[in-house]
Amino acid sequence: MTTLLQNFLNGDTRALARVISLVENRAAASRDILRQIYPRTGQAQTIGITGSPGVGKSSLVDSLAAAYRKQSRKTAIIAVDPSSPFTGGAILGDRIRMNALSTDRGVFIRSMATRGHLGGLAAATADVVNVLDAAGWNPVIVETVGVGQDEVEVVRVVDVSIVVLVPGMGDDVQALKAGIMEIGDIFVINKCDRPGVEKMEQSILTLLSLSSRADGWSPPVVKTVATDNQGIEELAQQIENCAAYFRGTQHNSSRKRDAAKQRLLALLQERLLEVALESAFPDGALETAVGEIADHKQSPHALVDEVVRRIKTSIGHS
Amino acid sequence: MTTLLQNFLNGDTRALARVISLVENRAAASRDILRQIYPRTGQAQTIGITGSPGVGKSSLVDSLAAAYRKQSRKTAIIAVDPSSPFTGGAILGDRIRMNALSTDRGVFIRSMATRGHLGGLAAATADVVNVLDAAGWNPVIVETVGVGQDEVEVVRVVDVSIVVLVPGMGDDVQALKAGIMEIGDIFVINKCDRPGVEKMEQSILTLLSLSSRADGWSPPVVKTVATDNQGIEELAQQIENCAAYFRGTQHNSSRKRDAAKQRLLALLQERLLEVALESAFPDGALETAVGEIADHKQSPHALVDEVVRRIKTSIGHS
Repeated sequence: MTTLLQNFLNGDTRALARVISLVENRAAASRDILRQIYPRTGQAQTIGITGSPGVGKSSLVDSLAAAYRKQSRKTAIIAVDPSSPFTGGAILGDRIRMNALSTDRGVFIRSMATRGHLGGLAAATADVVNVLDAAGWNPVIVETVGVGQDEVEVVRVVDVSIVVLVPGMGDDVQALKAGIMEIGDIFVINKCDRPGVEKMEQSILTLLSLSSRADGWSPPVVKTVATDNQGIEELAQQIENCAAYFRGTQHNSSRKRDAAKQRLLALLQERLLEVALESAFPDGALETAVGEIADHKQSPHALVDEVVRRIKTSIGHS
Repeated sequence: MTTLLQNFLNGDTRALARVISLVENRAAASRDILRQIYPRTGQAQTIGITGSPGVGKSSLVDSLAAAYRKQSRKTAIIAVDPSSPFTGGAILGDRIRMNALSTDRGVFIRSMATRGHLGGLAAATADVVNVLDAAGWNPVIVETVGVGQDEVEVVRVVDVSIVVLVPGMGDDVQALKAGIMEIGDIFVINKCDRPGVEKMEQSILTLLSLSSRADGWSPPVVKTVATDNQGIEELAQQIENCAAYFRGTQHNSSRKRDAAKQRLLALLQERLLEVALESAFPDGALETAVGEIADHKQSPHALVDEVVRRIKTSIGHS
């Protein structure tokens, strides 16, 4: 066992941060660690929080974390931030967190950027959740920005997922489509001191009544003012209710199977691409191929067909 | 050449719809077609429109399409909608479009769902853009919901990308982070008849002044009321200006290279996963593996290591 892993298992926070960095950078060394810590995972309550930018997710996560700290629970927060695709850094850098949390050793906060994780953000997030779980952090809260497919995949790795909305969005039907209704185990109307709360709640309940969940869970709607700690205790209670419900049904295992499958496929894709790039595009061949595609001299499909054909032949002959 | 391809090349709309379905379903037959039409691509002006739910993207796209129709341009719209991850269908189904557009044979509207495209949404969208381009549609407008990594990747396939915001979002710094500032070649403040336009514009200009684009383009801010057709002509003009700017610089080729690389990697991932699932998980072995991972009996990393090791060995020995 490496010193890093030993220190990690002894609860050293710097070792934890180092392991997470290895995992986030998809370093080969991280895979050994992940394999070795796997038996220790599955203990933490995992919570996902998603919603459009501006609904106050950070404040909500901070208040929720503070509530768990009152119960002396070691609380980890992973904030999945899409970073700048062109210049390679989030404009505003790491978020500003409440001072109370940032100096509390019982709270671990980590930002993860989506940059560079082609198809692998969900895989990387699931791995980081495992790392924190194995290190004894419980709950582990995953916060994502946006409501795209990536967020849906990220949310699938958690036990309980919360969709955050704000009053006024209900004016636009679009605000509630985009699959967001069916990700949520719990709906939060944050910034409830603003006008339009009843209308928003009605919109949520109407849309929920139109869809039917195969697992029999009825998502509650919780009203909060996160910056004021209003409704946070109720939210924590509803999270507990939801987790308890799924512990008691066979739907828990189908949910865990979905998450496991998702994760296996994402990991496979990530590693297979590595192998294909190494074997099929040595010494700058990738850049040459990219240039030909960009200039419309070569079809990307023709090129990929050729690479796949060669790999298939190799497998067939081995 | 197949009858389908012949009909497609003759401009038959049903053949077009059929080809798009094949491409969207990632059918093997679609790859032959894509290879054969590739030389005909690269003619259309491609435009991406992105923004959070509720900012009025659909109305904006509809008004913009109507403006292109005044120039008698055959206008295609691809609406990339995340569909329901659990029940498998968008709750509200296909969007409601203006009647004027839906009866106009010079407008082609197609929704694409993100479901089932693990890591492949950008690849599928790029393929559909190529299909429409080869069929002589110009411009091709790609509308996406949300601001996640998927949307960033989808937006990379277009020539000019537009980020849509609304007044009032500026109150929340978060509304403007998430990498959204650096995807935009043009910023639109829609619903400009609402209060807070100046503040929003100021926020955008401030954030733009903080970032610097390597390509020298200064993104303009266009104010619109899409439902009222206000500002749409100016938007069309700015799209033209932006496209003309990039045609005249060497940055165009670096941009096209980025898009080509992205596309090649996404296609590779998609096809490699297919091959690996066929060869490494025959006859229900995948479901068994998934069950073991879900029950924490098997680490996904250990399993993937084994699959990758076997493929690597095959390649090495061939």
